[in-house]
Amino acid sequence: MTTDAVAAVAELVQALPQGVVTTDPAALEKYRHDWTHDASADTPLAAVRAEDAGQVQQTLRWATAHGIGVVPRGAGTSLSGGSMGVDGTVVLSLERMRAVEIDTAARVAVVEPGALNVAVKNAAVAEGLWYPPDPSSFEICSIGGNIATNAGGLCCVKYGVTTDYVLGLDVVLADGTLVTLGGKRVKDVAGLSLLKLFVGSEGTLGIVTRAILRLVPAQAPRSTVIAFFPTVADAAAAVIELGRTVRASMVELMDRASINAVEDFQPMGLDRDSGALLLIQSDAPGASREEEVAAIVAACEVTGAKEVVATDDPDEAEMFVQARRVHFTALEPRGAVLPEDVGVPVPQLPALLAEVEAIAQRHEVEIPVVAHAGDGNTHPAIVYDPTDPDSERRARLAFDDIMRAAIDLGGTITGEHGVGRLKKGSLEAQLGPDVMALNRRVKAALDPDGILNPGSFV
Amino acid sequence: MTTDAVAAVAELVQALPQGVVTTDPAALEKYRHDWTHDASADTPLAAVRAEDAGQVQQTLRWATAHGIGVVPRGAGTSLSGGSMGVDGTVVLSLERMRAVEIDTAARVAVVEPGALNVAVKNAAVAEGLWYPPDPSSFEICSIGGNIATNAGGLCCVKYGVTTDYVLGLDVVLADGTLVTLGGKRVKDVAGLSLLKLFVGSEGTLGIVTRAILRLVPAQAPRSTVIAFFPTVADAAAAVIELGRTVRASMVELMDRASINAVEDFQPMGLDRDSGALLLIQSDAPGASREEEVAAIVAACEVTGAKEVVATDDPDEAEMFVQARRVHFTALEPRGAVLPEDVGVPVPQLPALLAEVEAIAQRHEVEIPVVAHAGDGNTHPAIVYDPTDPDSERRARLAFDDIMRAAIDLGGTITGEHGVGRLKKGSLEAQLGPDVMALNRRVKAALDPDGILNPGSFV
Ligand SMILES: Cc1cc2nc3c(=O)[nH]c(=O)nc-3n(C[C@H](O)[C@H](O)[C@H](O)COP(=O)(O)OP(=O)(O)OC[C@H]3O[C@@H](n4cnc5c(N)ncnc54)[C@H](O)[C@@H]3O)c2cc1C
Ligand SMILES: Cc1cc2nc3c(=O)[nH]c(=O)nc-3n(C[C@H](O)[C@H](O)[C@H](O)COP(=O)(O)OP(=O)(O)OC[C@H]3O[C@@H](n4cnc5c(N)ncnc54)[C@H](O)[C@@H]3O)c2cc1C
Repeated sequence: MTTDAVAAVAELVQALPQGVVTTDPAALEKYRHDWTHDASADTPLAAVRAEDAGQVQQTLRWATAHGIGVVPRGAGTSLSGGSMGVDGTVVLSLERMRAVEIDTAARVAVVEPGALNVAVKNAAVAEGLWYPPDPSSFEICSIGGNIATNAGGLCCVKYGVTTDYVLGLDVVLADGTLVTLGGKRVKDVAGLSLLKLFVGSEGTLGIVTRAILRLVPAQAPRSTVIAFFPTVADAAAAVIELGRTVRASMVELMDRASINAVEDFQPMGLDRDSGALLLIQSDAPGASREEEVAAIVAACEVTGAKEVVATDDPDEAEMFVQARRVHFTALEPRGAVLPEDVGVPVPQLPALLAEVEAIAQRHEVEIPVVAHAGDGNTHPAIVYDPTDPDSERRARLAFDDIMRAAIDLGGTITGEHGVGRLKKGSLEAQLGPDVMALNRRVKAALDPDGILNPGSFV
Repeated sequence: MTTDAVAAVAELVQALPQGVVTTDPAALEKYRHDWTHDASADTPLAAVRAEDAGQVQQTLRWATAHGIGVVPRGAGTSLSGGSMGVDGTVVLSLERMRAVEIDTAARVAVVEPGALNVAVKNAAVAEGLWYPPDPSSFEICSIGGNIATNAGGLCCVKYGVTTDYVLGLDVVLADGTLVTLGGKRVKDVAGLSLLKLFVGSEGTLGIVTRAILRLVPAQAPRSTVIAFFPTVADAAAAVIELGRTVRASMVELMDRASINAVEDFQPMGLDRDSGALLLIQSDAPGASREEEVAAIVAACEVTGAKEVVATDDPDEAEMFVQARRVHFTALEPRGAVLPEDVGVPVPQLPALLAEVEAIAQRHEVEIPVVAHAGDGNTHPAIVYDPTDPDSERRARLAFDDIMRAAIDLGGTITGEHGVGRLKKGSLEAQLGPDVMALNRRVKAALDPDGILNPGSFV
């Protein structure tokens, strides 16, 4: 730390209430890493655990005055290095701002950014309402992080992603100004769509200090279908077939390597010999659910499923969904993981999955794949040995090759995790120079001094 | 026209193929007005009827070189003065770019901006698919205009607005650069959400030359409920009650004055003595539709409906929907109309409707109201006598008062029509100076010379 930085941080510690700012190395260790566990993460100068929007404003005014970068942080579950520590910057954590309030008449939740996704879901359920967005990490990630990354999840194939539920935001800009965008009204086209611009901006344009989220009536009971296919290509074909006629509320895929990783970690009786399984849910109302389940089963059978099981039992269903959700954790014993998040148009899913297999062979790495298959969004997880530099080198080659393959298939390097620091090197390959320039122009217009999330994608 | 402008236009006429540019006064008359029929509309220097994106780029390069403003225009059905003629500018009409292509496997439509909304709907239907957004003007408005205004409609209470269906855009920027944003993939968070920023930007940031629109499986058969209430407040109460439990696919309101205006214009047997009617549809699948209709009927009865009729007959239903859609046209014989589009959080609907009544009395003007009630988005239509300056003066006072009332109730001056030129004076009252400044910063970053849609809201 330079003496300037020491003096600046001392000023901030003074300015904010006791305990808000920490420079304790042990405490900072927590704010260094996100779930990417990237070795290049730095220890920040300090961590500010803001208790209200006023303190966020104070911190940004201070940061602008001193030209010190600020890394916003929710719950630190980023899989793209979006919230990892950056040398010479402070972390601004929203973890203490967790209030959740439900307005039943307006059918909205008014939420502080640090509230976990699950807390919003539970508060809504208590009022007979539902907040659909459900990243696999919903029990451990914050709403602020969800908004900043435009998080997806399992039910977004039918119910859309985070941006579809954001009606209003309070945002603190780089210079400390707090702006209120949108509100409790459902429709509003007054002025540019700045609300939507902040969603998915990964903390590079402003800090979300409050959100108004749209709720919907409680989800109807669900039926779950689990279908085992000889090959990944067959499963992908079923996904396309389904999309034509059925509005399933979940269409998840696990390939053979994923099934086996999960079975190794926690045996659930999944068929280890299948090329892939699909986990499909229907929440069609009333008696029509039976019809929809029949259509789902038929679509799987016609595309070659070996075994198809349908269940109305919520506990049994939850077990299967849990098998899907535990995937990332199940890989931990196998080594370090480079988490991919590439997406393609749904008809390109078979081609992408074939490419991933070829890439795994070419670079001699294990790449289990799970996918929000109904949306064409896949998570190849590149497993490597962190103690073996050559293994890591091959993993990184595979990581880049998979993004390249997605781009070549008309897809994206990231469907929901964000670009963060991990993928910023590949962003221009997707967007091209003109769109990159547009990104930079908007960034410069809103954060001219580059205070917000420096070192991130823009 | 200045001699400079004459020379510049001559250059443009030369540069583009024969018949693309017109300066014929009779032809220009068509491009002077949009559906606002505002008396202040000017005759443009020329109208360019571009046939492809290349001609749009040429026009913008020319415009930037000469510092001449460009007003983008789809079908000219704007109700906010968004596409009306502006002195010293050229109109860039997209009406000749109308190609529509359906990719059934990817479930998207690839559309040129001048294609009418109905053309996209029909092309989708031919493939067993559905493009939901359905402004009342769907038979006469263009997709480019829908995207530029983030158009809503009748089914958006369940299915969302235009922005929810836009997966990709080609946009020509002020300097003539063509950028491609998004694509056929459903999920994509790579880089800032520029795609969403262009949606709803009312032609102030760029010109849409191609769109990729998400389609969904065909809509299930619908049942229609029409309910007559003693007062507008009762009908508004029913809307709130419905929102709690039912996902209706249409929740439209007409007040007494609207019912009578439509009956005068084209008798349909609507109950002229009702304070208001609600027109509600259910498209719940299969047998569950009956349950949903029963819940709808119950919600109307419990909130005081005098008469509730349910029908499964599509023709009868279409007649009622037609009564709602014809509203704007039905007012024509009554005088000129200032069309409002204010929205409030749904629980504030009764208060807003009461305010509108009070404002009508205060300024002695007739203000029939229809509303996309399920979304809290209302269209008070201020009728005045265009030959009577005092009538027009009172109408304009009412126009401003209604926007003020909406803002005071936590609402918006425009839910779907856009700010355009008609409401730009009230935008800052809603957004406040800081958000206005943000709008200007983004505009300046993307269109530094102010070429695009000058005189519009930003
Ligand atoms: C096991 C596991 C499963 C996952 N599954 C999914 C999934 O299904 N779908 C999915 O989309 N993601 C998934 N993720 C990724 C991650 O959970 C999401 O990206 C989540 O939205 C991050 O939330 P967070 O609170 O942890 O944010 P953080 O990691 O703290 O931050 C993420 C980004 O948001 C910014 N940020 C955080 N809070 C704010 C704020 N208040 N204002 C401005 N910027 C802010 C940060 O600067 C950073 O750029 C998964 C992660 C794990 C570990
Ligand atoms: C009877 C009637 C009923 C209506 N009902 C509804 C309704 O239910 N819901 C609703 O939302 N609206 C409604 N409208 C308003 C209007 O139809 C919509 O705003 C529609 O989206 C405008 O489309 P257009 O092609 O006519 O656009 P125009 O009027 O030509 O233009 C509208 C705006 O979009 C810009 N624009 C047009 N094309 C492009 C392009 N390719 N690129 C960039 N900018 C462009 C223009 O500059 C202008 O600012 C109604 C209008 C009428 C007359």
